[in-house]
Amino acid sequence: MNTFGTNFRITTFGESHGQAVGVVIDGCPAGLALAEGDIQPLLDRRRPGTSALVSPRNEADQVEILSGVFEGITTGTPIALLVRNEDHHSTDYVELRTLFRPGHADFTYQQKYGHRDYRGGGRSSGRETLGRVAAGAVAMKFLAGMGITIAGGIVSVHGKTGTAAIEAEILAAKNAGDSVGGIVEITARGCPAGLGDPVFGKLDAQIAGAMMGIGAVKGVEIGDGFEVAGRFGSGNNDPIRKNGFASNHAGGILGGISSGQEIVVRIAVKPTPSIAQAQKTVDIYGNDAEISVKGRHDPCIIPRILPVAESMLALVLIDCWLEQAKYRT
Amino acid sequence: MNTFGTNFRITTFGESHGQAVGVVIDGCPAGLALAEGDIQPLLDRRRPGTSALVSPRNEADQVEILSGVFEGITTGTPIALLVRNEDHHSTDYVELRTLFRPGHADFTYQQKYGHRDYRGGGRSSGRETLGRVAAGAVAMKFLAGMGITIAGGIVSVHGKTGTAAIEAEILAAKNAGDSVGGIVEITARGCPAGLGDPVFGKLDAQIAGAMMGIGAVKGVEIGDGFEVAGRFGSGNNDPIRKNGFASNHAGGILGGISSGQEIVVRIAVKPTPSIAQAQKTVDIYGNDAEISVKGRHDPCIIPRILPVAESMLALVLIDCWLEQAKYRT
Amino acid sequence: MNTFGTNFRITTFGESHGQAVGVVIDGCPAGLALAEGDIQPLLDRRRPGTSALVSPRNEADQVEILSGVFEGITTGTPIALLVRNEDHHSTDYVELRTLFRPGHADFTYQQKYGHRDYRGGGRSSGRETLGRVAAGAVAMKFLAGMGITIAGGIVSVHGKTGTAAIEAEILAAKNAGDSVGGIVEITARGCPAGLGDPVFGKLDAQIAGAMMGIGAVKGVEIGDGFEVAGRFGSGNNDPIRKNGFASNHAGGILGGISSGQEIVVRIAVKPTPSIAQAQKTVDIYGNDAEISVKGRHDPCIIPRILPVAESMLALVLIDCWLEQAKYRT
Amino acid sequence: MNTFGTNFRITTFGESHGQAVGVVIDGCPAGLALAEGDIQPLLDRRRPGTSALVSPRNEADQVEILSGVFEGITTGTPIALLVRNEDHHSTDYVELRTLFRPGHADFTYQQKYGHRDYRGGGRSSGRETLGRVAAGAVAMKFLAGMGITIAGGIVSVHGKTGTAAIEAEILAAKNAGDSVGGIVEITARGCPAGLGDPVFGKLDAQIAGAMMGIGAVKGVEIGDGFEVAGRFGSGNNDPIRKNGFASNHAGGILGGISSGQEIVVRIAVKPTPSIAQAQKTVDIYGNDAEISVKGRHDPCIIPRILPVAESMLALVLIDCWLEQAKYRT
Repeated sequence: MNTFGTNFRITTFGESHGQAVGVVIDGCPAGLALAEGDIQPLLDRRRPGTSALVSPRNEADQVEILSGVFEGITTGTPIALLVRNEDHHSTDYVELRTLFRPGHADFTYQQKYGHRDYRGGGRSSGRETLGRVAAGAVAMKFLAGMGITIAGGIVSVHGKTGTAAIEAEILAAKNAGDSVGGIVEITARGCPAGLGDPVFGKLDAQIAGAMMGIGAVKGVEIGDGFEVAGRFGSGNNDPIRKNGFASNHAGGILGGISSGQEIVVRIAVKPTPSIAQAQKTVDIYGNDAEISVKGRHDPCIIPRILPVAESMLALVLIDCWLEQAKYRT
Repeated sequence: MNTFGTNFRITTFGESHGQAVGVVIDGCPAGLALAEGDIQPLLDRRRPGTSALVSPRNEADQVEILSGVFEGITTGTPIALLVRNEDHHSTDYVELRTLFRPGHADFTYQQKYGHRDYRGGGRSSGRETLGRVAAGAVAMKFLAGMGITIAGGIVSVHGKTGTAAIEAEILAAKNAGDSVGGIVEITARGCPAGLGDPVFGKLDAQIAGAMMGIGAVKGVEIGDGFEVAGRFGSGNNDPIRKNGFASNHAGGILGGISSGQEIVVRIAVKPTPSIAQAQKTVDIYGNDAEISVKGRHDPCIIPRILPVAESMLALVLIDCWLEQAKYRT
Repeated sequence: MNTFGTNFRITTFGESHGQAVGVVIDGCPAGLALAEGDIQPLLDRRRPGTSALVSPRNEADQVEILSGVFEGITTGTPIALLVRNEDHHSTDYVELRTLFRPGHADFTYQQKYGHRDYRGGGRSSGRETLGRVAAGAVAMKFLAGMGITIAGGIVSVHGKTGTAAIEAEILAAKNAGDSVGGIVEITARGCPAGLGDPVFGKLDAQIAGAMMGIGAVKGVEIGDGFEVAGRFGSGNNDPIRKNGFASNHAGGILGGISSGQEIVVRIAVKPTPSIAQAQKTVDIYGNDAEISVKGRHDPCIIPRILPVAESMLALVLIDCWLEQAKYRT
Repeated sequence: MNTFGTNFRITTFGESHGQAVGVVIDGCPAGLALAEGDIQPLLDRRRPGTSALVSPRNEADQVEILSGVFEGITTGTPIALLVRNEDHHSTDYVELRTLFRPGHADFTYQQKYGHRDYRGGGRSSGRETLGRVAAGAVAMKFLAGMGITIAGGIVSVHGKTGTAAIEAEILAAKNAGDSVGGIVEITARGCPAGLGDPVFGKLDAQIAGAMMGIGAVKGVEIGDGFEVAGRFGSGNNDPIRKNGFASNHAGGILGGISSGQEIVVRIAVKPTPSIAQAQKTVDIYGNDAEISVKGRHDPCIIPRILPVAESMLALVLIDCWLEQAKYRT
């Protein structure tokens, strides 16, 4: 199941250490001006090797549009986007042939399939998200034309807020051969009321599924999230006034449908499971063992997860926007 | 979009104040012993009118199996389950014809469709979940035969823990014409490793979407959830030992695939938006107004949401269990 | 897989000899005036017991609308339609417990599932089509409002044309304990240009799948069908003139998309496999045997298949019509 | 909707005159030995420029595997297959900018989208089938391992049978600036009983949809097809004997489910609509005009449609084979 969406359907492909990664977008409306330059900046934001805070793996990650665009305009046919892989040190992964990395999918993939691609996680690698971000950039271009903008920001890392404090926290973890988690908030402004469907297709249900489908995410909140559990109804309902809502505890979604307010989503991101410190594990033969994960890993995935989370929100919103077209007739 | 699931597909139908509510299950394996008596107890748990803590609306909610069962055994054909509506005081809802209830779907439905069923929310009513619970009971019967059991429990209501404290809190809110929210935890035991799919079909992504698709849910956590954001990787990874995992911070899911440990899900439930206290709102003509919601509402939806959340988890797990059949060949 | 359609999704349920048959329609637009009286006439056309030419099984087949309609108007929520079964002579089917009827699904169901509902075919019975016709009636009501009308007619029965000749042919077969097949043509008038999708979602592909999904259908033609195989391109292309096309060999579909001309579909219907004459078969233990199928069967299914084929065409067209809404924004 | 299949899902992309064409296969089982050499031969059979009977367009059509294969074995992740376009004489198409070609999708695409890619039909070009054939080759490799083989053959061209007569007929049409149609039969041997689903997922329904989804196909028959319309039931039912069926009028499918006999499908293929002879048409401004289609077209598409039709049958069968896995547990 490598396809996401109903109306704006994306199918991602490619492994961390294979020939290429990419995505096919099916259902993008015709008439959108689109070039590689619209996609590359978002890819650059998720790219490794850009600072001491992220993985030093160095990939240009240059995207190529293979189809679906004619004379600079989308035609409504599938848009295939391709990025060739370049810098894959497979030798870093020899030890992983026989050892399961704690906190990774190694153990569960082996249980599920009876085998796994031990080279950097293969398909379970964060590199798979490249296809999502490429598609997300196309979605955001379309949404921007409809007045909808999406932005993500860091709420906290390892409990710290503030750029300097966060950077210090990440570097300290890196130096200790460890990693740290954090919280990210993604918002959408300009979203019209009416997006989302009743019952199982609720906008917040779609967003929650999209966000929890990003590796390392362990919690999702809409609006005030878990805080509402400690409230009275009289304090949690957003009063409606003729000039609009008086508050936004709901995070822009009521009954699963957008209210026209800002959509607010927060996700909890776990610390990167790949750490240099020794950890207890077993090998594929069932023997107790120790592992110290080598390779060029992120001490904190928060900076690079931002464009991924923004992309997933964009993919949900464009899908709902196109679905809503049925009611505009 | 009133269908949930891929392999065990349920389609729910019916409005709060229409003739009936129900569900059609498509994809239930043949050979399962099934009678109304297997379904009724779970429906009774979500039934209103059972205590002072929940809505006094009085419905027998007797389920009838219309198809898919022959000589007490499922045949593999669609199972249609029907519950007739009985006690609907539509007169309670006259005022709602022109006023939007804060915290409800009234405003957003009107924006989306240009009209809405003002009788108790119609399709957006919690009564729709009856079909989910009926289907969930069938799923749980099947899963139990595979050694998988699902149970839900109350973590807290309005910040309080403990049965007596919680009951007092709910009654106090009721007497004040108000309502309270809370947190619920649902667990699945006996789930084999290997359920769930990579990328977009992750087990936790499916669970998050299923839970956030229940009205009133504003947050979802898997395992330690938001707590992981403040941790080091060395403290968050679950060490693997030859006798099993040494901890379960991950909540039984790694890389989107079940690990064989207990699956742990928590949801934040908002206070019921229908309260007797006066609230600020607008009418359908855009004028500022006040509303005091009449009718027989739950001061706290927590007790009745439990079977719904259990059902949604069961529906996800049976869907993944059947999907996994492809790898058992 | 008992669901048909993407935008106007129908899920049928029920067995020939169970409690009831029915359908849930998900995705019907809101605002359509709908009552049982809109559905019953089409059901009556497929009803058995209406003449000497069809099965004498006597069922009132009264439909009940359970949901999705409020004050006589569809609300956009799922429409559940129910018909209770009445006249099921299960005793007719005792012999079928151990014998496979030639030309029926008995043998293949046994191979697929390891068991089968021997009471009149259970789910494989033509009675399943009742749900399709009920949903088709709703689709036709909607389409009529858009100026699209669907009609079916008999082309030939056992090679004969003309009402009297056809009736004589059917009665002769009946008296001989035999059955006859025929050809049916279904047309749609008033269909706008632009329905259908490129590649796999072609309108003719959808129609072909829908028609071949009716039991007893062994061939489908669009426009001139198999005749085109013997033509030159110069004689087969429909010239385009400013007043419209000069001919309609294509049957109203070009490149998988409706051209605005009349849509013309023909299907080949096999003789009813249930015949009184003795036939060679095997029993479920693998022994050679003879069978003479008792019960009240149709000597020719052509008269009763007409509303089913019309319904399937209507279901395809409404689905495409709603899909096309995306391009009307 | 550029995706086909449920379990073995293929998504094709690319235009006739764009950068590339290709396909992403999602759901191919892991463990299949696969290399470019398994795919290239089938692509070569549909390649133009191989004889005087087909289009002289000269493309190497070399396929590249981008993902999903590790150490020569499929891993279960998406398989992306890419073919770069080379020889596209876009200048041939200048005239098509304003004229609709009779028998083509030009008119209907313009009606649907308000624009169209006039360069050789763009996405509606037969070149799109390249992705289907690449995916079909993978499916056939898998099916062969299960003992299922698929083969297509020419029944007739313009009413003629026999290789020499057919070649003469095609060359005569070519020399006259015309084209001819024909009939093709595709069979599958070794297919186990039990493939296909009841109701809407019937194997023959899936095959009919798949075949009619190939451009130029106007009719589909299963087994004896339209001939059954003139038969008695006693002559059409295939008697069952303990050694197997005594005949195969049904074409290997009963009740929508494979019987274990040879599956027999026939399709009617229209004469290529692109002909050099002058034809009556209109321009995009609505004026009557004449067109004589230039470029390097096939006088008969029959030789090149064979691998496409075989591929579509393979794609249906592998999808059903994987679906059937659920019943093998």
